[in-house]
Amino acid sequence: MARSMEMRGITLVRDTNVPVYRQIYEHFRSAIRIGQLRPGDRLPSARRLAEEFATARGTIDAAYAMLAGEGYVVGRGPAGTIVSAGVGAVARDKGTKPAVHRSRVGAASSTGARLPGASNPRPFQLGLPSLDAFPRKIWSRVTARQVRELSVADMAYPDPTGFVPLRESIAAYLASARGIACTCEQIHITNGYQGALDLIVAVLLRRGDAAWIEDPCYPLAREALAAATASLRPIAVDSEGLRVADGVAQARRARLAVVTPSHQSPLGVTLSLPRRLALLAWASAADAFIVEDDYDGEFRYVGRPLPALKSVDHDDRVIYAGSFSKVLFPSLRLGYVVLPRRLIATFARVAQRRSHGVPALTQRAVAAFMTEGHFARHIRRMRNLYASRRRALADSLVAAFGDEIVVDLRHGGMHLIVRFRSRVSDSKLAKLAQAAGLAAEALSSRAVAQPCGQGLLLGFTNVAEKEAPVLCDQLVRAIGPLR
Amino acid sequence: MARSMEMRGITLVRDTNVPVYRQIYEHFRSAIRIGQLRPGDRLPSARRLAEEFATARGTIDAAYAMLAGEGYVVGRGPAGTIVSAGVGAVARDKGTKPAVHRSRVGAASSTGARLPGASNPRPFQLGLPSLDAFPRKIWSRVTARQVRELSVADMAYPDPTGFVPLRESIAAYLASARGIACTCEQIHITNGYQGALDLIVAVLLRRGDAAWIEDPCYPLAREALAAATASLRPIAVDSEGLRVADGVAQARRARLAVVTPSHQSPLGVTLSLPRRLALLAWASAADAFIVEDDYDGEFRYVGRPLPALKSVDHDDRVIYAGSFSKVLFPSLRLGYVVLPRRLIATFARVAQRRSHGVPALTQRAVAAFMTEGHFARHIRRMRNLYASRRRALADSLVAAFGDEIVVDLRHGGMHLIVRFRSRVSDSKLAKLAQAAGLAAEALSSRAVAQPCGQGLLLGFTNVAEKEAPVLCDQLVRAIGPLR
Repeated sequence: MARSMEMRGITLVRDTNVPVYRQIYEHFRSAIRIGQLRPGDRLPSARRLAEEFATARGTIDAAYAMLAGEGYVVGRGPAGTIVSAGVGAVARDKGTKPAVHRSRVGAASSTGARLPGASNPRPFQLGLPSLDAFPRKIWSRVTARQVRELSVADMAYPDPTGFVPLRESIAAYLASARGIACTCEQIHITNGYQGALDLIVAVLLRRGDAAWIEDPCYPLAREALAAATASLRPIAVDSEGLRVADGVAQARRARLAVVTPSHQSPLGVTLSLPRRLALLAWASAADAFIVEDDYDGEFRYVGRPLPALKSVDHDDRVIYAGSFSKVLFPSLRLGYVVLPRRLIATFARVAQRRSHGVPALTQRAVAAFMTEGHFARHIRRMRNLYASRRRALADSLVAAFGDEIVVDLRHGGMHLIVRFRSRVSDSKLAKLAQAAGLAAEALSSRAVAQPCGQGLLLGFTNVAEKEAPVLCDQLVRAIGPLR
Repeated sequence: MARSMEMRGITLVRDTNVPVYRQIYEHFRSAIRIGQLRPGDRLPSARRLAEEFATARGTIDAAYAMLAGEGYVVGRGPAGTIVSAGVGAVARDKGTKPAVHRSRVGAASSTGARLPGASNPRPFQLGLPSLDAFPRKIWSRVTARQVRELSVADMAYPDPTGFVPLRESIAAYLASARGIACTCEQIHITNGYQGALDLIVAVLLRRGDAAWIEDPCYPLAREALAAATASLRPIAVDSEGLRVADGVAQARRARLAVVTPSHQSPLGVTLSLPRRLALLAWASAADAFIVEDDYDGEFRYVGRPLPALKSVDHDDRVIYAGSFSKVLFPSLRLGYVVLPRRLIATFARVAQRRSHGVPALTQRAVAAFMTEGHFARHIRRMRNLYASRRRALADSLVAAFGDEIVVDLRHGGMHLIVRFRSRVSDSKLAKLAQAAGLAAEALSSRAVAQPCGQGLLLGFTNVAEKEAPVLCDQLVRAIGPLR
């Protein structure tokens, strides 16, 4: 006969295959199901029960966790473990788990209503496209069709280098819009620009390798490189863009340079042709690579978009990084790189180890959006819209501030810079604006090693023309005390 | 008057604001548009033109790249640069770019037809759920509604820690299905299990830190840790799972242990309760953390699913990693971790720097799928389906091979192990099977430092019951020569 001990009405059998936690679980489960324990009743404390049965605390906890997991009991912190409300009636006789799941979801709808989510962009927010002008109906139709047509094969692990038809569409788009001649094989799909940077850093940088960054620069690029424990070499930017000769003088042996040739981030200047050629020549001589972050190369309002640096890259030294965050919308989390041929295989290998790729639906939807012509049309529309919004914001700023400011309006991009004639600190101005709900940022916050001047960075893409005067008045009031 | 030079009919003006590459571009563009150059005509070689004009090769290339980008010319390698077919007629007079874009897309449809994609799962493929049994209509309806209702706010950068209603649904699910009591704040959404591992490694491991891995183990976990230059300590697995005492003896000071307690990958054994408690005690004493990879904890066919290790984790040492790859489908690229409270802030900070999060649509669709009850229903259905498919495959294997084999059928998981009585090498068997299109893998390939026995790993989730006998006969024929 089995050795057993009974305490508090619980019989524990010692020499059986059924573990102790399971016996305790069965005891309470049955007590609840037959109504011996009722909703609101308290179970003995796990600590005390463990002592009484001379068993490990974890054993009792395991039993209680199973009961809680199945909804029979709930933990109430210091009040102990309580039999769940309504559980006796629901669970009894059915042999199924009590319907605790729904009730714990709380406010989340179970009727198919929209789930609550993120907040709207703040006025002047940087780095966002005009979300109000996105063709949501078309996008929704295209995506709904792709999800309907998702095959069994599409549900398996995606190709870590990306969905081939999307890569073909991107190659065609780059040829036509950015002057880049590349094949589908060179396109590698990533989880946004940050996914691209992560991958680039993992493939190219060893601890301590030097990398040029622009000074001032885009903060996330700087952080991604710093996280890779690269030795960062900030190189100054002037009216022709990155001072390549400074880079060569300061860090000829660097492994990587990260640049924004179309519109330097944040200054908005364009890298001149002589500098482009010098940069390429340096990379060839140093056996280095260049990351061309072309985040908004499409958006140029004076003249036509310049061809990308990649388009004149004869020694195949440029990794061109593109993103759909600025030309479609950021929550897609979709980007890509155009790889030098010698790096294709290494990127594929590292990507295979680091990630199983980007969601199939996202890739299919964007591919369809592109091949059906919506993409090119959207970019054309946005270029016109941004030109108007840029102009309207600049005019409203001048109307609101008069000659206190100079609006630094570059030929492209998605933001402008307001420079104040007075010597007031731009970070103080930005703080006041932010306190008033306006997403202005201080130009000086983008400086790395040397000052880059003062001013407020204002995104114009989400400022509708008719809102511009109102928002500029708000800005005047917000920073009034300091002007 | 401007200084100029003329050569080959091209007039270059030197002292103007128009850069040379732009002048060359304009010359050829105009020549093509007026029909002076016709489809098939060859442009002068860039090298020669650069010499003639005493200008940089890159200048000519920039001009040619713009022309190619806009579709006026195509590069033909050694044959030079040729005026595109049909371009004269299309582009002329319209002032628009020639319609080169579409033609380069090649086979990709422009009429909204389904784009071509990935291939179907191979028989016996490991790690895939039953894709044929996924409720695609419901999924498609849920997703289509979420994409229709995507707001402006949802299109901006998503919260890098995840969409709150999804995190709430996951917390409720884990409480009910896996016995885990956690709050929404502890859930951090990731780009699949690999995204979780990347993040864990970035937060917790410094170069040279020791980490326990199971031996044999899941290869991707091993690779992710190796990429972090951690010092890997393979710890043997026996019939009770990881031999924790060996780990303590061999690497007490390790920083991390990565384990699969529900069904060890690949052996399928369950980590016993005493081992679970010993593992937790070690982690507390060593100030270490445990990654619980619960990739298929829901799928148990004998008895009910065991509560997760995390459910008895009193010192908050376990990072529970879940994935939707196995319970929904892999191309979602969606996973999550349940974090110890002390790690929440660090993970949020590192995630902010490393990634802008997971696509909003994916997160919304899965949240809705869960709160509407489809998720729990799907898992129940799959548990029953997998139980039948597992049984059917085991029976068919025995029918096909007789007493040449022993089928190692664990209580859970998504694959089984076929062990051969003869001493034939499992990697040779796997090679033969793979050559016949069957995705069998060798058990020995999962060993790290010590042998773990021989056998074939066969996934049963995508083997329909009526196909099982046919596929087993195929396997017999494929490996026949070696049996």
